[in-house]
Amino acid sequence: MSLLIVGSVALDSVATPEGKTDDALGGSATYFSVAARLFGPPVNVVAVVGEDFPKRHIEMLLGKGVNIDGLQIAPGKTFRWAGVYDESFGDPATLDTQLNVFEHFSPKLPEQYCCSSFVFLGNIDPALQGVVVDQVKSPILIAADTMNFWIEGKLTELKKLIARVDLLVINALEVRMLSGEKGLLAGARKVLSMGPKILVIKRGEFGSMLVTKDELFVLPAYPIEAVKDPTGAGDSFAGGFMGYLASRGKVNFEELKRALVAGTVVASFNVEGFSLERLISVTSEDIRGRMEHFRKITEFTVPQCFGG
Amino acid sequence: MSLLIVGSVALDSVATPEGKTDDALGGSATYFSVAARLFGPPVNVVAVVGEDFPKRHIEMLLGKGVNIDGLQIAPGKTFRWAGVYDESFGDPATLDTQLNVFEHFSPKLPEQYCCSSFVFLGNIDPALQGVVVDQVKSPILIAADTMNFWIEGKLTELKKLIARVDLLVINALEVRMLSGEKGLLAGARKVLSMGPKILVIKRGEFGSMLVTKDELFVLPAYPIEAVKDPTGAGDSFAGGFMGYLASRGKVNFEELKRALVAGTVVASFNVEGFSLERLISVTSEDIRGRMEHFRKITEFTVPQCFGG
Repeated sequence: MSLLIVGSVALDSVATPEGKTDDALGGSATYFSVAARLFGPPVNVVAVVGEDFPKRHIEMLLGKGVNIDGLQIAPGKTFRWAGVYDESFGDPATLDTQLNVFEHFSPKLPEQYCCSSFVFLGNIDPALQGVVVDQVKSPILIAADTMNFWIEGKLTELKKLIARVDLLVINALEVRMLSGEKGLLAGARKVLSMGPKILVIKRGEFGSMLVTKDELFVLPAYPIEAVKDPTGAGDSFAGGFMGYLASRGKVNFEELKRALVAGTVVASFNVEGFSLERLISVTSEDIRGRMEHFRKITEFTVPQCFGG
Repeated sequence: MSLLIVGSVALDSVATPEGKTDDALGGSATYFSVAARLFGPPVNVVAVVGEDFPKRHIEMLLGKGVNIDGLQIAPGKTFRWAGVYDESFGDPATLDTQLNVFEHFSPKLPEQYCCSSFVFLGNIDPALQGVVVDQVKSPILIAADTMNFWIEGKLTELKKLIARVDLLVINALEVRMLSGEKGLLAGARKVLSMGPKILVIKRGEFGSMLVTKDELFVLPAYPIEAVKDPTGAGDSFAGGFMGYLASRGKVNFEELKRALVAGTVVASFNVEGFSLERLISVTSEDIRGRMEHFRKITEFTVPQCFGG
């Protein structure tokens, strides 16, 4: 079933202890759509680039089978971001942000996108996320990403948006900010009471969790040999998660668990290279292989009895 | 099979956002032995207390079936530690350390302890840990804990000790310090090349890992509702881990995985109360129940095929 992603397409200049890029392909919609296509569903992108956006990136997206009918090309320059990661590969320091054409981005869905069954609202102004929800007809699942910036600056709009989505992707700090609860589980329950039926809680290099009213799933991070560039980890995770779900066409807790595993594995490949260089070369077979390995290194049994 | 623990017995004054204690029971050997007894094996303690050590704590340990023939009572006062945890419940700030009788502690094993099958060297001077290894006869498994303090101050002694143990309990930062490697897996392999066959890597609230030359196991933390006091989390984890192994009497990767789960679950109970208050009331059935729940909230399957 078809999957809609609304987000950013950017040119990133990133420095990490492992190297650097200049004006390399980036943006949430970019990572998301390439990640999602690994699972096969039709992927529809709504985003905006400037007239300077390199044609080779357009060709790459088309080559991956991404539908870019909704990619606006606006007068001006493409959104640019520059950041640097230190040895810990934690949150990057932003050196420069040039919104350019992204500043006046207004998501407009092409007619044929309005029936997308799965919808992902990338991390943009919650008011704009709402504009997308207005345009989709009877989707199976609407998911949204957000960040501390919107919790601090647009809380009213964000709460309105949250009440309209089925699934929210959020990190542990944002759960605390949004709920006012110290405990993660108590905070998650409070966020669930605001509307979404499903929470995906990201904990970066330490894994992720899935929380619903009645169920819980915790997953460690997939242990990789060497991180090169964490940029796009969250977006490729979300793309793998939603791409998996859209390819299955149904949403239940078993499939949500597998989607979390799929997203984690896709992100683990993505951070092994700069920009999208590693993600572009990954195959569905690589993904399945690593998901199987992930199962092998996390599964255990509990003996029937022990104790004295 | 019998399990030997050599470590500290202390009186702790701890403050957390949830409350405080004054001169409450603490120390690595204390948490370890009560945790290990939950799995039934005979537990032999070597440690030292002062003449001021409250008799009720002795009675509690005896009541739990802990063998304290090796608990020396020395002239002077018991080791005291005072610390405070902030809202993050991360590493505590130490307010006061009074080594007292612990300053001249020299571990001396009672005759009947020398045949202990499983040995745990708590986090003390590596030279003293070596003195214990000298005294045990043909154990099945010798495990050791250590910390950054010894890596920085007694590296030569520590490396000598590491070469003599089968299993090392260590955190991610210490792996990096000891190996000089940035990547955790590369660092782990380097530490394995120094002697131990098994590494248990602790990541606090984010879980743990088991690494051997050929195998890998990653486990998230058990998600609990509310932490009251993290003191003793690492020691009760180690006690649960070793207590489980000693109760099974054999060491293979399947049992090591279950031991990691057992340790994680015991620690998850321990941090729900101050000092040992929660740990003391836990039953083997509570442990097994939470281990089963842990399996339920972490297991997943991978579909045979997907992708377009």
